[in-house]
Amino acid sequence: MGVELIYLDHAAATPLDERVFLAMQPYFTEQFYNPSSPYAPALQVRRDYDAAKHTIARAIGAKPDELVMTAGATESINLAFASIGGHVVTANIEHHAVLAAAREYDHTIVASDEHGRVQTSVIMAAVRPDTRLISIALANNELGTVQPLRDIASAVREERQKRLAAGNTTPIYLHSDASQGVGQLDVHVSRLGVDLLTVNAGKIYGPKQTAFLWAASGVMLKPQIVGGGQERGLRSGTENVASVVGFAKAIELAETHRKYESERLHKLRNLLQGQLVAALPSAVVSGHAKHRLAGHLHISFPGIDAERLVFALEARGVLVATGSACAANKGTRSHVLTAIGLSDSVADGSLRLTLGHLSTPENTARAGEIIIEEMQRERQRIGL
Amino acid sequence: MGVELIYLDHAAATPLDERVFLAMQPYFTEQFYNPSSPYAPALQVRRDYDAAKHTIARAIGAKPDELVMTAGATESINLAFASIGGHVVTANIEHHAVLAAAREYDHTIVASDEHGRVQTSVIMAAVRPDTRLISIALANNELGTVQPLRDIASAVREERQKRLAAGNTTPIYLHSDASQGVGQLDVHVSRLGVDLLTVNAGKIYGPKQTAFLWAASGVMLKPQIVGGGQERGLRSGTENVASVVGFAKAIELAETHRKYESERLHKLRNLLQGQLVAALPSAVVSGHAKHRLAGHLHISFPGIDAERLVFALEARGVLVATGSACAANKGTRSHVLTAIGLSDSVADGSLRLTLGHLSTPENTARAGEIIIEEMQRERQRIGL
Repeated sequence: MGVELIYLDHAAATPLDERVFLAMQPYFTEQFYNPSSPYAPALQVRRDYDAAKHTIARAIGAKPDELVMTAGATESINLAFASIGGHVVTANIEHHAVLAAAREYDHTIVASDEHGRVQTSVIMAAVRPDTRLISIALANNELGTVQPLRDIASAVREERQKRLAAGNTTPIYLHSDASQGVGQLDVHVSRLGVDLLTVNAGKIYGPKQTAFLWAASGVMLKPQIVGGGQERGLRSGTENVASVVGFAKAIELAETHRKYESERLHKLRNLLQGQLVAALPSAVVSGHAKHRLAGHLHISFPGIDAERLVFALEARGVLVATGSACAANKGTRSHVLTAIGLSDSVADGSLRLTLGHLSTPENTARAGEIIIEEMQRERQRIGL
Repeated sequence: MGVELIYLDHAAATPLDERVFLAMQPYFTEQFYNPSSPYAPALQVRRDYDAAKHTIARAIGAKPDELVMTAGATESINLAFASIGGHVVTANIEHHAVLAAAREYDHTIVASDEHGRVQTSVIMAAVRPDTRLISIALANNELGTVQPLRDIASAVREERQKRLAAGNTTPIYLHSDASQGVGQLDVHVSRLGVDLLTVNAGKIYGPKQTAFLWAASGVMLKPQIVGGGQERGLRSGTENVASVVGFAKAIELAETHRKYESERLHKLRNLLQGQLVAALPSAVVSGHAKHRLAGHLHISFPGIDAERLVFALEARGVLVATGSACAANKGTRSHVLTAIGLSDSVADGSLRLTLGHLSTPENTARAGEIIIEEMQRERQRIGL
């Protein structure tokens, strides 16, 4: 179409960083060896794989042998649930992967507040003496709302103490999918206080279907995929060396530039939000005003059909999402927006704008102008 | 070291074909979109993904919506077992992934003959009225022995008829991991007669951790990894578009060149086998003389320490395996060699030489010379 594309959907997918691609490339071609083979070039591949896991572990303040490399966040989440099982507690704004995994077990789904925040007291009220797992994402993928994870973690520690005192030996663990937070928030496991952590490379300019599940030492994992015994028997299958090396590069870059990048995105997002709200005063911004990912802007235009708007914007080169990019969500109202109590008319007019590496002050401002123009055109069309 | 490398371990890993790499590349960078996103560039990625699945399906004579894309053969095998469950029958020469998956269920492990072939009558003798799954690889990854899969399939069809006549409604299915056969053998599902088929891209010059599980329509699969509902709800997680596009290219190339390549490898392998056996008459060639993968040569030198030999060969640039490249196998005697009744002294002196794209008449002949020299040196050293 010759239109310059402005990508505002970094929460759905990110392009591979060129440096990540360069790091991966040798493992597709010259360094293609099976890391379990016995000769020196394969042993070198094994060392490179281990070094990559070391880099990833360091980025979250963990030990490499506490990581299980998996093929995506969804697999990691499923592994966490399958390992811990029992009664599980999660929230109604969680990603489909968490909700679907929870439904395989005895579960309680608690409600978030109207900003998409899950209060610690609400979670803990749902915890029973036989609850084994609490799973709360670090940040919500639709609203960008950041959860009070440290607070929840300290409540879980208290519960553990109470159980110890009461002679209840049922373990209780806190799992978090931090895929949407890495590169913008601190994901150091001790500081977060979690027992299990899922992180995905695909959201941080790394390869898709590449993730890990971290489990604190002492947390017993149970493999879902058995066979050759790779990943300490917890995830069998020939290792995806190229992808894990790419993940290491991606998370290293994300951590190195985190402070700068989150400040940059925060500024850009606030400018965009100000621009849109000033021109379209009936717009509703959702998510927590303060505890929100720097690059996230969830904005609703009551009475407008967001799906129609997405196509109008696309024709002008602006790529945005109506809600979560998950396949299951297609053509249905977002469960997250229902959970935070948005009326149907507001929910159906929602855009999720997520900034990232491809965002510049110029293209973000230009996207703002185009969104305003298309919104006004759409309003005129329907006589709003 | 400056030594030219001669790779004789194609069964463990294969380098990405340059054409596969070129096909994948755009999906890492410009075409990075999440295929579930609603705008045109993402819809194009979805179409490319679907087209890739179409190509893969065509290569095995199946329909695209009968495929579930997974992150590796091990995952596919686990999905097949988890879906069908019940009493399962497999053989003692199967890959660790199959044996480990079988052990999760009520199982019977039958014995192969001394050539690594599993006789249909032996399998069917183990089938009980409640047997639901038989899993036999198309070709054994260590010996290269090709199984009588069509014959087994027709016995399974007979069993089905018998059950129908007896009013037994328990379904019985035949699953095969054909990862080691693609590119050398016909893997058309109707001609094989299987109900479930696993194929991996990593053994055919495609990307690692990329595979499918095919299931005939009517075979009900049960997801192990739940979430966003991708792959018709049977394997959730954002699709690995680059890898699946690469797999399509790899399997297309494998099928196009299958006849030529398998004849070429067959000739090369026979020359190498002749060269080694002529110079080292005490050598024992294992695997079926006729029903054997074209590129496979499993050869044992009684009394020799194969691990030591692997290092000596590596120092001269020749890369070979002692047995299966699976992690679980490390430092232990191959269960396959025990299964076919090789004595410990023969088994411990075994090399697996597997030819492929990197093999030429020149480097294969040169490898043969080096193996002979190193064997003779080793024999002298230990006074054999």
